[in-house]
Amino acid sequence: MQRILNNPDDIVDEMLEGFLKTHSDMVESTENPRVVKAKNIPEGKVGVITGGGSGHKPAFIGYVGKNMCDAAAVGEICSSPTAAAFLDACKVVSQDKGVACLYGNYSGDNMNVKMAVKMAKKAGITVKTVVANDDVASAPKDQREKRRGVAGEIFMWKAGGAKAALGGSLDEVIAAAQKAIDNTRSVGIGLTPCTLPAVGHPNFEIKEGTMEVGIGHHGEPGIEVCELETASQMAKRMVDIVLPDYPFTEGDEVAVLVSGLGATPVMELYVLYNEIEKLLGEKGIHIYKSYVGNYFTSLDMMGATLTVMKLDDELKELIDLPVYTMGMKQI
Amino acid sequence: MQRILNNPDDIVDEMLEGFLKTHSDMVESTENPRVVKAKNIPEGKVGVITGGGSGHKPAFIGYVGKNMCDAAAVGEICSSPTAAAFLDACKVVSQDKGVACLYGNYSGDNMNVKMAVKMAKKAGITVKTVVANDDVASAPKDQREKRRGVAGEIFMWKAGGAKAALGGSLDEVIAAAQKAIDNTRSVGIGLTPCTLPAVGHPNFEIKEGTMEVGIGHHGEPGIEVCELETASQMAKRMVDIVLPDYPFTEGDEVAVLVSGLGATPVMELYVLYNEIEKLLGEKGIHIYKSYVGNYFTSLDMMGATLTVMKLDDELKELIDLPVYTMGMKQI
Repeated sequence: MQRILNNPDDIVDEMLEGFLKTHSDMVESTENPRVVKAKNIPEGKVGVITGGGSGHKPAFIGYVGKNMCDAAAVGEICSSPTAAAFLDACKVVSQDKGVACLYGNYSGDNMNVKMAVKMAKKAGITVKTVVANDDVASAPKDQREKRRGVAGEIFMWKAGGAKAALGGSLDEVIAAAQKAIDNTRSVGIGLTPCTLPAVGHPNFEIKEGTMEVGIGHHGEPGIEVCELETASQMAKRMVDIVLPDYPFTEGDEVAVLVSGLGATPVMELYVLYNEIEKLLGEKGIHIYKSYVGNYFTSLDMMGATLTVMKLDDELKELIDLPVYTMGMKQI
Repeated sequence: MQRILNNPDDIVDEMLEGFLKTHSDMVESTENPRVVKAKNIPEGKVGVITGGGSGHKPAFIGYVGKNMCDAAAVGEICSSPTAAAFLDACKVVSQDKGVACLYGNYSGDNMNVKMAVKMAKKAGITVKTVVANDDVASAPKDQREKRRGVAGEIFMWKAGGAKAALGGSLDEVIAAAQKAIDNTRSVGIGLTPCTLPAVGHPNFEIKEGTMEVGIGHHGEPGIEVCELETASQMAKRMVDIVLPDYPFTEGDEVAVLVSGLGATPVMELYVLYNEIEKLLGEKGIHIYKSYVGNYFTSLDMMGATLTVMKLDDELKELIDLPVYTMGMKQI
């Protein structure tokens, strides 16, 4: 395992220390060492929080900052933050308009958010939630409630965060975030497994010369293992999984996000995006805005995800709003 | 080789296509397909260009944009752009104040920039150059002219680009970029080799359980191969190489950049930065601004580089100026 580590058990603490030092212009620590909050949260706005396991950087703390999330609860590697961390995240951002908790559909997160919401209610804080479930490969279309949240969460945070920044009410923020995720579909292709630092070797296998279509960010099995394909073939495979599921159709305007899984060089993500853009163009689907880079990763996994969100005027306005976080900056 | 590719010979063309589509708000193509220029270059400014081989993304085209470089010449993977590309980059940014060409110390780049400068002169364009040589491990201290340019180039572009944006003359831009690189020292540690897509296997080796200190971005041999160390030990080793070389001393204010080499998860870069920050603090060196992420990479190599620049009031002002490129954004 060729990694930059001290004691693997300390990696989350040490990463957080380094992150807070580097980004002291946008984030700060809180009394709970597993909660990071934005600096200078505007007065009177709906609080927007998220949270999740570590190892997916920039997610989740990398999306805390101006016009996006106000705080994030931090879990151990690939494991949910505690209910207490979600609760404390709510507390540090709670003003008088309530809190929107926008998170991904994983059993641990579901359980802990549910508990946090109950505890927050007792403490007089109204928390409403949106659960991301954009990963098409993780369950059939008629069981969307079973699907995992993946890189589509970024669009959910962008839309919800922007709505809150624009002065939206809690219900408006929740509606915007819900619309964003309802309009969004993702799929991933894994080319190598990832290694949990504390384990020291991959706990699943992707054989050289093969790839796993529909893999999850924690190595959850995909829908097919096949021979490694060209970028063009991979793009077609991803587009053919994502587009019919919503469905996206001719004339649609979309936002597209191509994220690396951590160890794939960014150069290759541009090659993949180039193919995706051509395929969408052939179908008459117009890319209004695109994002290519390491936006939602899985430790040192090689591979990429494709996320497509259908836009309307409201979502365009929310996506266009300037944002300043470690993971996404736009003016 | 688990990579996202079509024909490896087309990777630079296809990457450029994808890059230009994604970042059409900040960059545009030119008549020379190996030259990328910034959109909306302000009138009357000194042109700032750079260039280099591909495979180091965000370098070099990722630093083209508002308040940084105005154009970049693009080479094949790990190989210099042609003299014609450097010349064309000069031409597309040339106004009446001349052009600053800020590039890294590699034999191919030196030769081609030299030819381009001559050809530009014939075409009536004044081009002055600064050559980055921040890689401490690549030659002894008394032979700085032999040292390679690595991630310190980013500070050179930031300072030179800012000076030009603020209305500086060609000589002032050159002086600012030269001061930035003169005040900057870097070192890298490689944990895995990288693979040229067209070759399909690494052309050098770093054995599991070892690391190569002082490795170059193209796999140039380092100064020592040793057992893989902890993040804390790696940080000490890097700091002990970089600090005495300038030298940096108690009371100095510095900018620090920790870049991944491509495949190391960003989480680990924060762990490394955390250790570096502690070591600098112990020495009374104050970090005024820090950058942690994949800023200057080497295809799919694992590992990281440390870059430290000593600041004065002028460099602080230049580093602080807002910038908007794919590789660096600050408000």
